[in-house]
Amino acid sequence: MSAGAPGPSAAIREEVRATDPAAVRALVRATGFFSDEEIAVAGALVEERLQRGPASGYHFLFAEAGGALAGYACYGQIPLTRSNFDLYWIVVRPDRQGAGLGRRLLALVEAAAFRQGGARLYAETSSRPHYAPTRAFYRAAGFDPAAELADFYAPGDAKVVFAKLLAPTR
Amino acid sequence: MSAGAPGPSAAIREEVRATDPAAVRALVRATGFFSDEEIAVAGALVEERLQRGPASGYHFLFAEAGGALAGYACYGQIPLTRSNFDLYWIVVRPDRQGAGLGRRLLALVEAAAFRQGGARLYAETSSRPHYAPTRAFYRAAGFDPAAELADFYAPGDAKVVFAKLLAPTR
Repeated sequence: MSAGAPGPSAAIREEVRATDPAAVRALVRATGFFSDEEIAVAGALVEERLQRGPASGYHFLFAEAGGALAGYACYGQIPLTRSNFDLYWIVVRPDRQGAGLGRRLLALVEAAAFRQGGARLYAETSSRPHYAPTRAFYRAAGFDPAAELADFYAPGDAKVVFAKLLAPTR
Repeated sequence: MSAGAPGPSAAIREEVRATDPAAVRALVRATGFFSDEEIAVAGALVEERLQRGPASGYHFLFAEAGGALAGYACYGQIPLTRSNFDLYWIVVRPDRQGAGLGRRLLALVEAAAFRQGGARLYAETSSRPHYAPTRAFYRAAGFDPAAELADFYAPGDAKVVFAKLLAPTR
Protein backbone atom coordinates (compact mmCIF):
# COMPACT_ATOMS: atom_id res chain seq x y z
CA MET A 1 0.00 0.00 0.00
CA SER A 2 1.53 3.29 -1.06
CA ALA A 3 1.76 6.32 1.20
CA GLY A 4 -1.43 8.35 1.21
CA ALA A 5 -3.52 5.39 0.08
CA PRO A 6 -6.82 5.27 1.93
CA GLY A 7 -6.23 1.94 3.65
CA PRO A 8 -8.77 -0.79 4.09
CA SER A 9 -12.43 -0.27 3.34
CA ALA A 10 -14.41 1.52 6.04
CA ALA A 11 -17.18 -0.20 8.01
CA ILE A 12 -20.58 1.49 8.06
CA ARG A 13 -22.87 1.77 11.07
CA GLU A 14 -26.24 3.52 11.49
CA GLU A 15 -26.42 3.49 15.28
CA VAL A 16 -25.72 6.88 16.87
CA ARG A 17 -23.48 6.86 19.96
CA ALA A 18 -22.81 9.37 22.73
CA THR A 19 -19.30 9.94 21.38
CA ASP A 20 -20.52 10.86 17.90
CA PRO A 21 -21.22 14.60 18.39
CA ALA A 22 -17.58 15.22 19.36
CA ALA A 23 -16.29 12.84 16.68
CA VAL A 24 -18.40 14.55 14.00
CA ARG A 25 -17.25 18.01 15.09
CA ALA A 26 -13.61 16.87 14.99
CA LEU A 27 -14.11 15.31 11.55
CA VAL A 28 -15.86 18.36 10.10
CA ARG A 29 -13.19 20.62 11.58
CA ALA A 30 -10.37 18.41 10.24
CA THR A 31 -11.45 19.06 6.66
CA GLY A 32 -10.44 22.71 7.05
CA PHE A 33 -13.40 23.37 4.77
CA PHE A 34 -16.19 24.41 7.11
CA SER A 35 -16.77 27.48 9.27
CA ASP A 36 -17.08 27.34 13.07
CA GLU A 37 -20.83 27.87 12.73
CA GLU A 38 -21.10 24.97 10.28
CA ILE A 39 -19.08 22.75 12.63
CA ALA A 40 -21.44 23.64 15.49
CA VAL A 41 -24.53 22.92 13.39
CA ALA A 42 -23.15 19.56 12.25
CA GLY A 43 -22.56 18.53 15.88
CA ALA A 44 -25.93 19.87 17.00
CA LEU A 45 -27.79 17.58 14.59
CA VAL A 46 -26.07 14.54 16.11
CA GLU A 47 -26.97 15.76 19.60
CA GLU A 48 -30.58 16.29 18.57
CA ARG A 49 -30.70 12.74 17.24
CA LEU A 50 -29.29 11.41 20.53
CA GLN A 51 -31.86 13.38 22.53
CA ARG A 52 -34.94 12.76 20.40
CA GLY A 53 -34.15 9.51 18.58
CA PRO A 54 -35.60 8.84 15.13
CA ALA A 55 -38.34 11.44 15.86
CA SER A 56 -35.62 14.05 15.34
CA GLY A 57 -35.89 13.29 11.63
CA TYR A 58 -32.09 12.94 11.40
CA HIS A 59 -30.58 9.66 10.26
CA PHE A 60 -26.88 8.93 10.09
CA LEU A 61 -24.37 6.70 8.38
CA PHE A 62 -20.96 6.58 10.02
CA ALA A 63 -17.94 5.18 8.15
CA GLU A 64 -15.24 3.89 10.50
CA ALA A 65 -11.75 2.61 9.82
CA GLY A 66 -9.07 1.76 12.34
CA GLY A 67 -11.41 2.70 15.20
CA ALA A 68 -11.81 6.28 13.96
CA LEU A 69 -14.46 8.15 12.04
CA ALA A 70 -13.47 8.34 8.36
CA GLY A 71 -16.64 10.02 7.11
CA TYR A 72 -20.35 10.35 7.73
CA ALA A 73 -23.62 11.36 6.17
CA CYS A 74 -26.78 12.81 7.72
CA TYR A 75 -30.12 12.68 5.95
CA GLY A 76 -33.84 12.58 6.67
CA GLN A 77 -37.32 12.93 5.28
CA ILE A 78 -38.31 16.56 4.82
CA PRO A 79 -41.25 17.37 7.11
CA LEU A 80 -44.53 18.09 5.31
CA THR A 81 -43.35 16.45 2.10
CA ARG A 82 -44.93 13.19 1.06
CA SER A 83 -41.72 11.44 0.07
CA ASN A 84 -38.75 13.73 -0.35
CA PHE A 85 -35.50 13.51 1.56
CA ASP A 86 -32.70 15.92 2.34
CA LEU A 87 -29.01 15.13 2.51
CA TYR A 88 -28.04 17.45 5.35
CA TRP A 89 -24.36 16.56 5.64
CA ILE A 90 -21.80 14.41 3.89
CA VAL A 91 -18.17 14.71 4.93
CA VAL A 92 -15.06 12.57 4.41
CA ARG A 93 -11.85 13.00 6.44
CA PRO A 94 -9.09 14.54 4.28
CA ASP A 95 -6.76 11.52 4.55
CA ARG A 96 -9.61 9.27 3.34
CA GLN A 97 -10.73 11.44 0.44
CA GLY A 98 -10.30 10.44 -3.19
CA ALA A 99 -11.03 6.77 -2.61
CA GLY A 100 -14.75 6.77 -3.30
CA LEU A 101 -15.93 6.87 0.33
CA GLY A 102 -18.10 9.94 -0.29
CA ARG A 103 -19.72 8.25 -3.29
CA ARG A 104 -20.22 5.09 -1.23
CA LEU A 105 -21.87 7.02 1.64
CA LEU A 106 -24.06 8.90 -0.83
CA ALA A 107 -25.16 5.65 -2.55
CA LEU A 108 -26.07 4.21 0.86
CA VAL A 109 -28.09 7.33 1.72
CA GLU A 110 -29.92 7.09 -1.62
CA ALA A 111 -30.70 3.41 -1.05
CA ALA A 112 -31.88 4.01 2.53
CA ALA A 113 -34.09 6.95 1.48
CA PHE A 114 -35.55 4.89 -1.36
CA ARG A 115 -36.30 2.00 1.00
CA GLN A 116 -38.11 4.47 3.26
CA GLY A 117 -40.32 5.55 0.36
CA GLY A 118 -38.17 8.45 -0.81
CA ALA A 119 -38.88 9.76 -4.30
CA ARG A 120 -36.24 12.45 -4.43
CA LEU A 121 -33.09 13.42 -2.55
CA TYR A 122 -32.17 17.09 -2.19
CA ALA A 123 -28.77 18.54 -1.36
CA GLU A 124 -28.27 22.24 -0.73
CA THR A 125 -24.96 23.97 -1.13
CA SER A 126 -23.39 27.34 -1.75
CA SER A 127 -22.68 28.99 -5.10
CA ARG A 128 -19.27 30.19 -3.87
CA PRO A 129 -16.10 29.01 -5.68
CA HIS A 130 -15.09 27.36 -2.37
CA TYR A 131 -17.94 24.87 -2.94
CA ALA A 132 -17.12 24.06 -6.59
CA PRO A 133 -15.85 20.57 -5.58
CA THR A 134 -19.11 19.98 -3.66
CA ARG A 135 -21.22 20.95 -6.66
CA ALA A 136 -19.05 18.79 -8.94
CA PHE A 137 -19.52 15.87 -6.52
CA TYR A 138 -23.32 16.16 -6.70
CA ARG A 139 -23.37 16.56 -10.48
CA ALA A 140 -21.13 13.52 -10.93
CA ALA A 141 -23.51 11.56 -8.68
CA GLY A 142 -26.50 12.34 -10.91
CA PHE A 143 -27.90 15.39 -9.13
CA ASP A 144 -29.25 18.33 -11.12
CA PRO A 145 -29.61 21.92 -9.93
CA ALA A 146 -33.32 22.43 -9.21
CA ALA A 147 -33.39 25.96 -7.84
CA GLU A 148 -31.11 28.80 -6.83
CA LEU A 149 -31.80 31.45 -4.20
CA ALA A 150 -29.67 34.56 -4.77
CA ASP A 151 -27.91 36.10 -1.75
CA PHE A 152 -29.20 33.34 0.52
CA TYR A 153 -26.17 32.62 2.70
CA ALA A 154 -24.74 36.12 2.33
CA PRO A 155 -24.68 38.88 -0.31
CA GLY A 156 -23.33 37.25 -3.48
CA ASP A 157 -23.54 33.77 -1.96
CA ALA A 158 -26.54 31.90 -3.37
CA LYS A 159 -28.05 28.64 -2.19
CA VAL A 160 -28.06 26.02 -4.94
CA VAL A 161 -30.57 23.22 -4.44
CA PHE A 162 -29.62 19.98 -6.16
CA ALA A 163 -32.13 17.17 -6.63
CA LYS A 164 -31.89 13.56 -7.68
CA LEU A 165 -34.76 11.21 -8.46
CA LEU A 166 -34.30 8.02 -6.48
CA ALA A 167 -34.56 4.64 -8.12
CA PRO A 168 -34.10 1.02 -7.06
CA THR A 169 -30.45 0.18 -6.49
CA ARG A 170 -28.95 -1.86 -9.27
CA MET B 1 -70.48 46.05 16.43
CA SER B 2 -71.99 44.00 13.62
CA ALA B 3 -72.06 40.21 13.62
CA GLY B 4 -68.84 38.74 12.30
CA ALA B 5 -66.85 41.88 13.01
CA PRO B 6 -63.42 41.12 14.42
CA GLY B 7 -63.89 42.88 17.73
CA PRO B 8 -61.31 44.97 19.53
CA SER B 9 -57.68 45.01 18.47
CA ALA B 10 -55.60 42.07 19.63
CA ALA B 11 -52.73 42.40 22.09
CA ILE B 12 -49.34 41.05 21.03
CA ARG B 13 -46.93 39.13 23.24
CA GLU B 14 -43.57 37.51 22.46
CA GLU B 15 -43.23 35.39 25.60
CA VAL B 16 -43.91 31.68 25.01
CA ARG B 17 -46.01 29.92 27.67
CA ALA B 18 -46.58 26.28 28.54
CA THR B 19 -50.16 26.52 27.28
CA ASP B 20 -49.10 27.75 23.82
CA PRO B 21 -48.43 24.40 22.07
CA ALA B 22 -52.04 23.30 22.68
CA ALA B 23 -53.42 26.76 21.89
CA VAL B 24 -51.44 26.89 18.63
CA ARG B 25 -52.58 23.41 17.59
CA ALA B 26 -56.21 24.37 18.32
CA LEU B 27 -55.84 27.60 16.35
CA VAL B 28 -54.19 25.95 13.36
CA ARG B 29 -56.83 23.20 13.41
CA ALA B 30 -59.67 25.75 13.68
CA THR B 31 -58.75 27.24 10.32
CA GLY B 32 -59.79 24.01 8.61
CA PHE B 33 -56.95 24.81 6.24
CA PHE B 34 -54.07 22.65 7.46
CA SER B 35 -53.44 18.91 7.48
CA ASP B 36 -52.97 16.88 10.67
CA GLU B 37 -49.25 16.69 9.93
CA GLU B 38 -49.04 20.46 9.54
CA ILE B 39 -50.93 20.93 12.82
CA ALA B 40 -48.46 18.62 14.56
CA VAL B 41 -45.45 20.45 13.11
CA ALA B 42 -46.85 23.83 14.14
CA GLY B 43 -47.26 22.59 17.72
CA ALA B 44 -43.84 20.91 17.75
CA LEU B 45 -42.08 24.20 16.97
CA VAL B 46 -43.69 25.82 20.03
CA GLU B 47 -42.66 22.84 22.16
CA GLU B 48 -39.10 23.04 20.85
CA ARG B 49 -38.99 26.72 21.77
CA LEU B 50 -40.23 25.94 25.30
CA GLN B 51 -37.60 23.21 25.70
CA ARG B 52 -34.61 24.98 24.17
CA GLY B 53 -35.42 28.66 24.55
CA PRO B 54 -34.13 31.20 22.03
CA ALA B 55 -31.40 28.68 21.03
CA SER B 56 -34.17 26.79 19.24
CA GLY B 57 -34.06 29.53 16.61
CA TYR B 58 -37.86 29.90 16.78
CA HIS B 59 -39.37 33.21 17.77
CA PHE B 60 -43.07 33.85 18.21
CA LEU B 61 -45.61 36.62 18.18
CA PHE B 62 -48.96 35.75 19.74
CA ALA B 63 -52.03 37.92 19.14
CA GLU B 64 -54.60 37.60 21.90
CA ALA B 65 -58.11 39.00 22.23
CA GLY B 66 -60.67 38.24 24.91
CA GLY B 67 -58.21 35.87 26.62
CA ALA B 68 -57.92 33.62 23.56
CA LEU B 69 -55.36 33.23 20.80
CA ALA B 70 -56.54 35.13 17.70
CA GLY B 71 -53.44 34.51 15.59
CA TYR B 72 -49.72 33.94 15.74
CA ALA B 73 -46.52 34.04 13.75
CA CYS B 74 -43.31 32.01 14.07
CA TYR B 75 -40.04 33.17 12.54
CA GLY B 76 -36.30 32.89 13.02
CA GLN B 77 -32.89 33.43 11.53
CA ILE B 78 -31.98 30.72 9.04
CA PRO B 79 -28.96 28.79 10.35
CA LEU B 80 -25.78 29.26 8.33
CA THR B 81 -27.06 32.42 6.66
CA ARG B 82 -25.50 35.71 7.58
CA SER B 83 -28.71 37.68 7.90
CA ASN B 84 -31.74 35.99 6.38
CA PHE B 85 -34.90 35.04 8.23
CA ASP B 86 -37.67 32.57 7.61
CA LEU B 87 -41.35 33.08 8.37
CA TYR B 88 -42.22 29.54 9.44
CA TRP B 89 -45.88 30.07 10.33
CA ILE B 90 -48.48 32.79 10.22
CA VAL B 91 -52.06 31.89 11.08
CA VAL B 92 -55.16 33.90 11.99
CA ARG B 93 -58.28 32.37 13.54
CA PRO B 94 -61.14 32.29 11.01
CA ASP B 95 -63.42 34.59 13.03
CA ARG B 96 -60.61 37.17 13.22
CA GLN B 97 -59.62 37.03 9.54
CA GLY B 98 -60.22 39.90 7.12
CA ALA B 99 -59.41 42.59 9.67
CA GLY B 100 -55.72 43.05 8.96
CA LEU B 101 -54.40 40.93 11.82
CA GLY B 102 -52.29 38.79 9.47
CA ARG B 103 -50.79 41.89 7.89
CA ARG B 104 -50.15 43.34 11.36
CA LEU B 105 -48.41 40.15 12.55
CA LEU B 106 -46.34 40.04 9.36
CA ALA B 107 -45.30 43.69 9.74
CA LEU B 108 -44.22 42.96 13.34
CA VAL B 109 -42.19 39.94 12.18
CA GLU B 110 -40.51 42.05 9.49
CA ALA B 111 -39.67 44.77 12.01
CA ALA B 112 -38.33 42.26 14.55
CA ALA B 113 -36.21 40.46 11.93
CA PHE B 114 -34.85 43.79 10.69
CA ARG B 115 -33.95 44.86 14.25
CA GLN B 116 -32.08 41.56 14.63
CA GLY B 117 -30.02 42.34 11.52
CA GLY B 118 -32.26 40.60 9.01
CA ALA B 119 -31.71 41.50 5.37
CA ARG B 120 -34.41 39.32 3.85
CA LEU B 121 -37.47 37.41 4.99
CA TYR B 122 -38.43 34.17 3.25
CA ALA B 123 -41.80 32.46 3.26
CA GLU B 124 -42.34 29.04 1.72
CA THR B 125 -45.68 27.80 0.54
CA SER B 126 -47.30 25.36 -1.82
CA SER B 127 -48.19 25.87 -5.48
CA ARG B 128 -51.56 24.14 -5.00
CA PRO B 129 -54.79 26.10 -5.68
CA HIS B 130 -55.62 25.57 -1.96
CA TYR B 131 -52.78 27.97 -1.15
CA ALA B 132 -53.73 30.70 -3.66
CA PRO B 133 -54.92 32.98 -0.80
CA THR B 134 -51.58 32.43 0.97
CA ARG B 135 -49.61 33.36 -2.14
CA ALA B 136 -51.85 36.40 -2.70
CA PHE B 137 -51.23 37.43 0.93
CA TYR B 138 -47.45 37.36 0.45
CA ARG B 139 -47.58 39.17 -2.89
CA ALA B 140 -49.79 41.89 -1.43
CA ALA B 141 -47.30 42.27 1.41
CA GLY B 142 -44.42 42.92 -0.99
CA PHE B 143 -42.96 39.44 -1.30
CA ASP B 144 -41.75 38.16 -4.67
CA PRO B 145 -41.38 34.52 -5.74
CA ALA B 146 -37.65 33.76 -5.59
CA ALA B 147 -37.57 30.07 -6.46
CA GLU B 148 -39.85 27.13 -7.15
CA LEU B 149 -39.08 23.46 -6.52
CA ALA B 150 -41.28 21.19 -8.65
CA ASP B 151 -42.92 18.18 -6.97
CA PHE B 152 -41.50 19.20 -3.58
CA TYR B 153 -44.43 18.51 -1.25
CA ALA B 154 -45.90 15.81 -3.47
CA PRO B 155 -46.12 15.05 -7.20
CA GLY B 156 -47.60 18.14 -8.83
CA ASP B 157 -47.26 20.16 -5.62
CA ALA B 158 -44.30 22.53 -5.85
CA LYS B 159 -42.69 24.59 -3.11
CA VAL B 160 -42.76 28.30 -3.89
CA VAL B 161 -40.19 30.36 -2.00
CA PHE B 162 -41.18 33.99 -1.55
CA ALA B 163 -38.66 36.61 -0.44
CA LYS B 164 -38.90 40.18 0.75
CA LEU B 165 -36.04 42.60 1.31
CA LEU B 166 -36.37 44.10 4.78
CA ALA B 167 -36.14 47.82 5.32
CA PRO B 168 -36.50 50.19 8.27
CA THR B 169 -40.13 50.52 9.36
CA ARG B 170 -41.73 53.76 8.28
